[in-house]
Amino acid sequence: MVATNDCDVLIVGAGPAGLMLSTWLSKLKIRTRIIDKAPTKVLVGHADGVQCRTVEVFQSFGFAQRLVDEGAHINEVVSWALDSKGILQRTGRIPDNEPGTSRFPHAVLSQGRIERFLLDAMKDFNNLTVQRSTAPVSLSVDQNLVRDFSPNSYPVSVTLRRLTEEESVPTQLGAVPNGLHRSNLLADDEFDAAKGTKEAGAFDNAGEEETVRTKFLVGCDGARSWVRKQMGLSLEGDAAGAVWGVLDAIVSETTFPDIRLKCTVQSKVGSILIVPRERDYVRFYIQIGSTKPGERFDRSSVTPESIIETAKKIMAPYTLECSDFEWWTVYEVGQRLCKTFSHDERLFIAGDACHTHSPKAGQGMNTSMMDAYNLGWKLAHVLQGKATPNLLKTYSEERYKVAKELIDLDYKLSRMFSAKPKEEGGDGDGVSLAEFKAFFKSLSRWASGTAVHYRPNMLVAPERQPALAPGLPTGMRFESHLVVALADARPWHVGDRLVSNGRWRIILFAGDVRDEEQKKKLEQVAAYFDAADGPVRRYTPPNEDLDSVVEVLTIISNPRISVEPNAFPAILWPARKPSPAYDKLYADDSSPVTPNVRGEIYKNLGIDPKTGCIAVVRPDQTVSLVCALDEHKQIGDFFAQFMIPQA
Amino acid sequence: MVATNDCDVLIVGAGPAGLMLSTWLSKLKIRTRIIDKAPTKVLVGHADGVQCRTVEVFQSFGFAQRLVDEGAHINEVVSWALDSKGILQRTGRIPDNEPGTSRFPHAVLSQGRIERFLLDAMKDFNNLTVQRSTAPVSLSVDQNLVRDFSPNSYPVSVTLRRLTEEESVPTQLGAVPNGLHRSNLLADDEFDAAKGTKEAGAFDNAGEEETVRTKFLVGCDGARSWVRKQMGLSLEGDAAGAVWGVLDAIVSETTFPDIRLKCTVQSKVGSILIVPRERDYVRFYIQIGSTKPGERFDRSSVTPESIIETAKKIMAPYTLECSDFEWWTVYEVGQRLCKTFSHDERLFIAGDACHTHSPKAGQGMNTSMMDAYNLGWKLAHVLQGKATPNLLKTYSEERYKVAKELIDLDYKLSRMFSAKPKEEGGDGDGVSLAEFKAFFKSLSRWASGTAVHYRPNMLVAPERQPALAPGLPTGMRFESHLVVALADARPWHVGDRLVSNGRWRIILFAGDVRDEEQKKKLEQVAAYFDAADGPVRRYTPPNEDLDSVVEVLTIISNPRISVEPNAFPAILWPARKPSPAYDKLYADDSSPVTPNVRGEIYKNLGIDPKTGCIAVVRPDQTVSLVCALDEHKQIGDFFAQFMIPQA
Ligand SMILES: Cc1cc2nc3c(=O)[nH]c(=O)nc-3n(C[C@H](O)[C@H](O)[C@H](O)COP(=O)(O)OP(=O)(O)OC[C@H]3O[C@@H](n4cnc5c(N)ncnc54)[C@H](O)[C@@H]3O)c2cc1C
Ligand SMILES: Cc1cc2nc3c(=O)[nH]c(=O)nc-3n(C[C@H](O)[C@H](O)[C@H](O)COP(=O)(O)OP(=O)(O)OC[C@H]3O[C@@H](n4cnc5c(N)ncnc54)[C@H](O)[C@@H]3O)c2cc1C
Repeated sequence: MVATNDCDVLIVGAGPAGLMLSTWLSKLKIRTRIIDKAPTKVLVGHADGVQCRTVEVFQSFGFAQRLVDEGAHINEVVSWALDSKGILQRTGRIPDNEPGTSRFPHAVLSQGRIERFLLDAMKDFNNLTVQRSTAPVSLSVDQNLVRDFSPNSYPVSVTLRRLTEEESVPTQLGAVPNGLHRSNLLADDEFDAAKGTKEAGAFDNAGEEETVRTKFLVGCDGARSWVRKQMGLSLEGDAAGAVWGVLDAIVSETTFPDIRLKCTVQSKVGSILIVPRERDYVRFYIQIGSTKPGERFDRSSVTPESIIETAKKIMAPYTLECSDFEWWTVYEVGQRLCKTFSHDERLFIAGDACHTHSPKAGQGMNTSMMDAYNLGWKLAHVLQGKATPNLLKTYSEERYKVAKELIDLDYKLSRMFSAKPKEEGGDGDGVSLAEFKAFFKSLSRWASGTAVHYRPNMLVAPERQPALAPGLPTGMRFESHLVVALADARPWHVGDRLVSNGRWRIILFAGDVRDEEQKKKLEQVAAYFDAADGPVRRYTPPNEDLDSVVEVLTIISNPRISVEPNAFPAILWPARKPSPAYDKLYADDSSPVTPNVRGEIYKNLGIDPKTGCIAVVRPDQTVSLVCALDEHKQIGDFFAQFMIPQA
Repeated sequence: MVATNDCDVLIVGAGPAGLMLSTWLSKLKIRTRIIDKAPTKVLVGHADGVQCRTVEVFQSFGFAQRLVDEGAHINEVVSWALDSKGILQRTGRIPDNEPGTSRFPHAVLSQGRIERFLLDAMKDFNNLTVQRSTAPVSLSVDQNLVRDFSPNSYPVSVTLRRLTEEESVPTQLGAVPNGLHRSNLLADDEFDAAKGTKEAGAFDNAGEEETVRTKFLVGCDGARSWVRKQMGLSLEGDAAGAVWGVLDAIVSETTFPDIRLKCTVQSKVGSILIVPRERDYVRFYIQIGSTKPGERFDRSSVTPESIIETAKKIMAPYTLECSDFEWWTVYEVGQRLCKTFSHDERLFIAGDACHTHSPKAGQGMNTSMMDAYNLGWKLAHVLQGKATPNLLKTYSEERYKVAKELIDLDYKLSRMFSAKPKEEGGDGDGVSLAEFKAFFKSLSRWASGTAVHYRPNMLVAPERQPALAPGLPTGMRFESHLVVALADARPWHVGDRLVSNGRWRIILFAGDVRDEEQKKKLEQVAAYFDAADGPVRRYTPPNEDLDSVVEVLTIISNPRISVEPNAFPAILWPARKPSPAYDKLYADDSSPVTPNVRGEIYKNLGIDPKTGCIAVVRPDQTVSLVCALDEHKQIGDFFAQFMIPQA
C-alpha cells in the first residue's frame, strides 16, 4: 500500500545542491520531499560566485535574469604585487573568462538570493516547499526491493524528526560569532527570516517523528553529511594548513583604484582576494594564519576589524575604510573527496557532502548545484519509466571526475595563495608572479563551468573521428549561438530553446537544403524520425505530443527566406495542441531588425554548411552524440542502450 | 487645512494612460490617487502592439523583460497581393523596424498584461492601487487658487461616487457581445478577475460619495472622457466610413506560410492585417463593410465565425482553421483630436481622451502611455518645488504635435486599407501595390515610437549649428549605445542608466582625456558643475546626494584602462552613502569578455572622439541641449529658465 507521505525522492538538506535538485524535480513533476534541519534558508554570506555555466542552467529554468539584474558582474581579474622596490603595483589584467565563453556573465550574488530564486521556482513549478527544522534520525533499505523498480516499490525508509529550537539553530562554520545584519535583507527574504522565529509556531511539533518511504534518497546535507555516514562513506584527504578570514563589507572610502574589480593582492604581509559584490558590497578573502597538521587555529582573536586591519596592511599604501560588516567567518582550507556518490543507485549524495575545498575558485556552490542538475533528470527518467535504472550509475562516475579535478585545482590554487611571493629570478618554494598569472589564466575557462567534460559512457558517445562539429565535443555542454526562427524571423539563442523540461533534443544541422541531394538526406532523416521504431516515436507515449520526449530542432544553413517554413516534413514541426509547433525550425541567418547579430552557428561550431550533422543533446544540455545525416541510425542505437520503448 | 483624502494628483481612468501616469508618480513618491469606473482591469483583447520606444520606457521602470519574455516579437512585415493572374502572392518583405532602431524588439502582448505590469510596478514603488468602481460626479476649480502653487493650495475639488454593479459593467466598444474566455487568463490576472465579482464585496459601498481636493486632475478616461467634457473640450474630426472586425484566435491549421509574421493581405474580396500574438494567438483585422456619413453599421450580424469566413475568402486559396476565439469586436474607424490637452495647467487629459484613431498602426496604447510619460515628471517637478509651473505648458504643446501626426498618418493608413487595390498601371482611386509598400516602409520608423520629435521650447533647445552629435537631435529620445564602466569593466547600455527616477542627466562626452588640453577642458567643466551656482549644486537640496537632481554621466572616448577611474574630479563620481558613485564613469570601449560588443557610441552618434560634447537629457530621456565642452555655461542658462534654485 502507498501511504500519503511516501514520495519518489526524499532530499535531505536544502542548500544549493538540495534546492537545485528539488527545483529540477518539481519542474519534472516528480513527487518530492525536501527537509532541512535549519529553520531558515541562508540569509547573508556564504558562497557568492555564480559561474557562467550555472547562469545558463538558471536560464533553462527561467530565472537567470533575476541573477543578472541583482548580481555584480565579474569581467576582469587584476593582479597586484610588489615591484622590485617593494611598491605595490598592478602587475596584470586578464579577462575573467575567455571572450565568448558564454552568453551570460559571471555574476556574484549572495547564496541566500540564489536559494531564494530556487525556492521561488520550485514553488512555482509544482508548489513544493522545504520542510524546515526537520532532520532524519534513522534510515533502512529493504534489500529485497532494491532491484525492484515497479511503481509501488519503496525500498528506502527514513524516520524524520521535528527539531526543537535548540537543535535547529542555523549552522555557521565553526563557533565564531558572525555578523548577521537582517536589516540588509531584501523584502522577499524578510519573510523567511521572520518564519524562522518562534512566533511563527515553527517549533510547535518539535520532537514528533514520522517514517517516510521513498524510492530514492539524496543527501544534500553538506560537508558533515548524515546521509553519507549512513552510506558508510567519508570524505578523504587532508586539511591544508592555511586559515582564511572572509568578510563582506562596504568600502566607504579607498584610494585603491580597482575596488570594483576582482583582484588578487600579494604583499610581504600576505595575500588578499577582493571580490566586488552586489549592493556595493565587497568581499575580502584574507589569509590570517596557518596551522600544522593536528593543530587547531584559535579563532577567538578574529573579528571583522582584525580582518580589515590585515587587509589595510596588505594594501598599503592604498587607504581602505570599511563599514556595514554584513557577514564574516574564518575557515581552514581542506581538500576532501568521497570515493563514490551513490549506493545501490538508491542512496545518493551531492554537493559538499561529496567534496569540500576552499571557496577561492568560487566553485563550491556551483559544483554542488551542477551535481544535482546532473542527477535530477536521471532520477526522473527512471521514475517515469522512460529509461532503465542503470543510467543512474553515470551520476557518480561523471560527477566524481569533476569533483576530483576541482580538488586538484583547488589544492594548487590554495598553494599559490598561501605561498610567499618569490622575487623575480629568486629561489625557494615561493610562487613567482609569472607562475601565478599563468595559473590564473588557465583557471578561467575551468572556473566558468563550461569546461566540464564527461568521459564516454552509456550517455556520452565517443567522439566521432573526424569530428563533424569540433565546437560540440561529446560530454560537454551544448555551446549556444544565435539562429533565426523560420516562422517569425525572431532571433533566438539555441540555448534558450533547451529549456530544462526533461526532453532530449536532436539538433538537426540540416545543411543547405536548397541542394537537392541534401534535401533528400534531410527527408531520409525525417522519415527515420517519423518511423514507429525511430528514436522519436519509439520512446514517446502514444497519447503525448511528439516533441515531449525527444524534441527535434532543425537548423538550416541557407537563408531563412530561401525556403518556406511549412515545406518541411511534418515530423520536423509536428502538430501539437492547439497549434502546430512553429518553434522547431531555424536558419543560420541574420535578423531583419537586429544589426550585428549574425547567427554564424555553423561557423562557430565548425560544421560544414553544405552537409551539416546531427547532435543529440541530453536533458542537461550535455552533447551525447554527433553523427552525419546518413549515419542517423546511430541515434536509435544510442537510445536503445538505456531508453524504454513506450508501447 | 489638509484633509487626509486630499492628494497632489488625482487620475481619472486606469487604462494604459492612467496607469503609466500613476506608475511614474508612484516612482517619484507623489501623493496620487487613481480611480476607474470599471470593476477590473482589461483581461483580454484591446490593444496589443508595444512599440520599441515604449519598451525602452518600460525598461527605465524595470519591467521591460516581462514584456520581452511574454510577448510575441514582430521582426518583419510581409505584404501579400494578387498577381496579374489574380493569384495571391507574397509581394514584399520589409523589416518591421529599420535595423538598429532600438535595442528592444517591437513586442505584441495583450493590453491586460501591460496593465498588469504597470499595476505591479506602482504597487511596488509606492504601494499605490486603483480604486475601482468609482467615477467622478462633479468638479470645481477655485479660480483664486489656480495660480497659487504653495504647498497647501488645492484648487481642484472632485466629488467621487462608488458605483453600483450595474453602473460599473466593463465597457466594450459598442454593444456587441464579445468572447471573454477567462480560462485563458494567466494566474496573476485571475485574482483581478475574481475581485471584480460581487463575492469580493466590491459594491458594498455603492452610492457613497466623497469629495477630494487635489492640486492637479488628469483625465485618462478614454475616448468619451468625462474630464474633457468638464474642461469644455471635445474631440474634433470625422468618423471615416470603414467598419472593421477584430478577432484574437488560435490558428489550428493553415497552409499560409506566414501566419507567424505580421502580414497585410489584399485581395478582390478585401484586405486583412494579420498580427502574430503571444501564446500562439493570431489577431486578424478585417474590413467587414463601410458606412456613409450619418449611417450606423448593423453590428448584430458580426460573429467571430463571420470574421473568419471573410478572412478565409481573402486568404484563398490558402486554408485557415481557427479555434479558441478569445476576444473580438467591431469598430468604425474615426480620426479625432482635441485642440488642447490642458486647462490652466491644473486640469489635463491624456491618451484616448485627447485623440482617437484606428488601431492598425498599433499606436493608441503607446501614444496614450507616452502622453502620460511626458506629463508625469513635469507634475512631479512642480509639486516637489524643483521647477516653475510654466513648464507644464510644454505638455499640451509637445503631445498635441505627436497626436496630430498620428491622426494624419492613420488617416492615410486607413485609406490604404479601405481602398480597393489598383491593378498595376491601372487607374481610379485605388492604391497601387508600390504606393502601399512605400507607405509601409515610411511608417516603420514612425511606428517604432523613436521618431517623436518635439519642437524647440523651454525644455528643448534649438539644434546647435553645426551639430556636435548628429545622432542626438534635441527634442528626440536619447539613442542608447553600449559603453563600458571604468570601475568594473561591465558593459552597459547608456539607456539602462537613464532610469526613470525624475533625474536630469548631463551626459558628458569628455572626448580623449589623455590629451592634456582636453583634460583641462574637462576639469573646467567639472569645476563649473562643482560650483555653488553651477547646474548641479544650484538645483540640488543641500542635504541630498549630488546625483539626485542632475546626474552627470561621463563617457570618455579613450580606452578604459588608459585612465585610473579614481583620477577624475570628485564631482564626476560624487561621494554618496554608503560608498562612492562608481556608476558615473564610462568609456567608449569594448568589454574584456563579451565579443562583438564594441561600444562605438561616439561613432554611432557622430561625436568627435577628440573633443566630445555635452548632452542634457530630460527625466523622460528627451535630449534637451547639446553643446561643446567650452560652451558649458549654456547648461546653466538652460536650467535657469524653469528650475528653482534650492537654497
Ligand atoms: C565563506 C564561504 C565562501 C564561499 N564562497 C563560495 C563561492 O564564492 N562560490 C562557490 O561556489 N561556493 C562558495 N562556498 C561554498 C558553498 O557555500 C558550498 O559549497 C555550498 O553551499 C554547498 O552546497 P550544498 O547544498 O552542498 O551544502 P550546504 O550549503 O552546506 O547545505 C547543506 C544543507 O543541509 C542541511 N543539513 C545538514 N545536515 C542536515 C541534516 N542532518 N538534516 C537536515 N538537514 C541537514 C543544512 O542545514 C544546509 O541547509 C563558500 C563557502 C563559504 C563558507
Ligand atoms: C480592438 C482594438 C485594438 C487596438 N489595438 C491597438 C494596438 O494594437 N496598439 C495600440 O497602441 N492601441 C490599440 N488600440 C487602442 C488602445 O486600446 C487605446 O488607445 C488605449 O487603451 C487608450 O488608453 P487610455 O488609457 O487613454 O484609454 P482607455 O484604455 O480607454 O482607458 C480609459 C479608462 O478610463 C475609465 N473611465 C472612463 N470613463 C470614466 C469615468 N467617467 N470615471 C472613471 N473611469 C472612467 C475606463 O473604464 C478605462 O479603464 C486598440 C483598441 C481597440 C479597441
